[in-house]
Amino acid sequence: MENAVFNEVYDLCMRAKANSATLARARTEVKNQALCTFAQLLRDNTAAILAANEKDLANAKENGVKDTMLDRLRLTEARIEGMAKGAEDIARLDDPVGKGDCWTRPNGLSIRRVRVPMGVVGVIFEARPNVAADVAALCIKSGNAVVLRGGKEAIQSNRAIVALVRRALAESGLAAEAVQLIENTTRASSEALMQMRGLIDVLVPRGGKGLIRAVVDNARVPVIETGAGNCHLYIHADADLSMALDIAVNAKISRPSVCNACETILVNEAVAEKFLPMLKEAMDAHHCEIRGCERTREILPDVTPATEEDWDTEYNDLILAVRVVDTLDKARIHINRYGTGHSETIVTNDLSAAEYFQSAVDAAAVYVNASTRFTDGGEFGFGAELGISTQKLHARGPMGLTALTTEKYLINGNGQVR
Amino acid sequence: MENAVFNEVYDLCMRAKANSATLARARTEVKNQALCTFAQLLRDNTAAILAANEKDLANAKENGVKDTMLDRLRLTEARIEGMAKGAEDIARLDDPVGKGDCWTRPNGLSIRRVRVPMGVVGVIFEARPNVAADVAALCIKSGNAVVLRGGKEAIQSNRAIVALVRRALAESGLAAEAVQLIENTTRASSEALMQMRGLIDVLVPRGGKGLIRAVVDNARVPVIETGAGNCHLYIHADADLSMALDIAVNAKISRPSVCNACETILVNEAVAEKFLPMLKEAMDAHHCEIRGCERTREILPDVTPATEEDWDTEYNDLILAVRVVDTLDKARIHINRYGTGHSETIVTNDLSAAEYFQSAVDAAAVYVNASTRFTDGGEFGFGAELGISTQKLHARGPMGLTALTTEKYLINGNGQVR
Repeated sequence: MENAVFNEVYDLCMRAKANSATLARARTEVKNQALCTFAQLLRDNTAAILAANEKDLANAKENGVKDTMLDRLRLTEARIEGMAKGAEDIARLDDPVGKGDCWTRPNGLSIRRVRVPMGVVGVIFEARPNVAADVAALCIKSGNAVVLRGGKEAIQSNRAIVALVRRALAESGLAAEAVQLIENTTRASSEALMQMRGLIDVLVPRGGKGLIRAVVDNARVPVIETGAGNCHLYIHADADLSMALDIAVNAKISRPSVCNACETILVNEAVAEKFLPMLKEAMDAHHCEIRGCERTREILPDVTPATEEDWDTEYNDLILAVRVVDTLDKARIHINRYGTGHSETIVTNDLSAAEYFQSAVDAAAVYVNASTRFTDGGEFGFGAELGISTQKLHARGPMGLTALTTEKYLINGNGQVR
Repeated sequence: MENAVFNEVYDLCMRAKANSATLARARTEVKNQALCTFAQLLRDNTAAILAANEKDLANAKENGVKDTMLDRLRLTEARIEGMAKGAEDIARLDDPVGKGDCWTRPNGLSIRRVRVPMGVVGVIFEARPNVAADVAALCIKSGNAVVLRGGKEAIQSNRAIVALVRRALAESGLAAEAVQLIENTTRASSEALMQMRGLIDVLVPRGGKGLIRAVVDNARVPVIETGAGNCHLYIHADADLSMALDIAVNAKISRPSVCNACETILVNEAVAEKFLPMLKEAMDAHHCEIRGCERTREILPDVTPATEEDWDTEYNDLILAVRVVDTLDKARIHINRYGTGHSETIVTNDLSAAEYFQSAVDAAAVYVNASTRFTDGGEFGFGAELGISTQKLHARGPMGLTALTTEKYLINGNGQVR
């Protein structure tokens, strides 16, 4: 039985690989045409997509799926229009394929180093059908075939969306088979995908901590880790406290469920007495619970005590951990120990404190006097993104189209030997 | 017992990590000073290194290690001078740390994207003590701490070399503990190193196929695969056969044991009758065995028949597989099926054949009319290299210092919220 699943996934990956070369060599204008056709097909087939999504929602409700997940699963006219606009936005982005540099060696060899598509990208995601559309569009633009393995709750919606992607490819003269959806949504199918050495060039898990951990632990294909964000805000001794408060509220409250939201605030002891009551008032107004260290509770006696586990937790919720620290260096140590290498910020007007924080804190994005919420492909000016990489290999921070490409050396000679 | 080994390795990795920050922030001139001091120490302590190496050689002979491995293990005055010159060459290379670009967003956020060291690099290598010196020098220049795990045969030599690296660091005001040697050379110690998530930022196996495979299969830290090279030479229908022969001899014979040597030659049927006898004569002169497909054996009846396994084998020896193919596309299919994505070359004067080959063959380096032997950091103009990456993620082809760095976003604002 497991073997049958493996063979099924293997077959889909083989088909993606067999059709990857035409997509890899497709002209930018053809790929853009496919993306715009896809956008139009999404708009023209909104009713059919919503009907498929209704079936998913009905099944999910029957299976007792909780409301927050139902919300992620639910498509609306506006969300489908968002997917269509997303594909059009990606069509407008610069194509990274074929860019590069070149030089000539003393022996006359001419070397070009050019960006080329990865080949076949695998993506494992959860019950968010918009991910299928976004990821397929990013892969088409970057010239990659893609094998999608979505959550079982979204299977009807994913099927409807992928059918339109494939139609758009075919109508633009590209290979529909370059986009594959694994319809078997058992655990065995995602485990099989993780084993496809030689077929999957890179595997990207898009989802919660559990999914990412399972992929990193089990994959035998190259993986890019995304998304885990235990982000910190450190208020230095000389901070402008009104700026610090604005940033704290924005980083924690504006969208608590996302990976660039702040989870722990570290406050220098010099300003704790003044700042913590301001913070408490603001968080109370937004119904955000504070969990504080002992020194925080000396100033704010009625907050919940924070435990070791709190420092380690990405709440993704209206909960905020607060710790008072003696020094900038204590803040750095806390962040490098508990952080996930995503986004960290300091509020200060002290130049050397700012420089030390930015150089010594080990994270993809390190801010001075700004909210962690800016770590995002759009906010950085890259356009659409595949996710936020929290690893150091290959891509770090918001991953645009370039992260879906690799390099290739093309060397031309006229008989050179060594 | 296994647990004790794990703890020992964990402790060394922690010490490397704890000392990685000072090296990461060290100025280029200080790192260069350490490299030049290391070179001088190698020269001044040649006798002591050779004495340590003698012990390794004596042990290895006692344990029946075969001659080719003894040769790799053996140090000489010239090889130690080579290590010293290598360190000085690395001192002269451009420092990638701190390079980058920057831009300002419409909201006034100033974004810098700069290259920073990975942090802690792990390297598992076999019985070649020069690797310890080369890798340590590359890591120091790129600002990385390093944990070395060499083959048990070379332990005395490695100890002597690493002691000098650490002395050079200390004499230059850098942390000696940033370079660690795992002295326990049991299998358990390399397995432990593969599990050091959060401590080892990237692990590079340097050695044979078995080692690389074991690391890729078992590592739970990010890995860069290097070195596997099943490289091909394809002689197209219109090839200049004298150029083809020169390239064939160079690619196969000049250094058969290295990864960029050619293992299989594919010959277009249009030139097979003329070319194969020329090839046979040249290979005979160099005592290189040919293993041929059926069509090859119709022309060269006394060569050994090639089996499926031959197409798959990186001989690293004076053996050459030969196959006659109908078309350019059959050559591409063979290469993409059996190749390891290292270096591939076509001999042709046909522009569209050359362009098709370079775009459709999936490898780090794809040549027209030149030997595969040029795939090398020095030959590409990068200076010293850490190895040749055959994966697509992060680094592909010869890896210079930049492959040992990652990016970091530094964002400065004055209170921006989203």
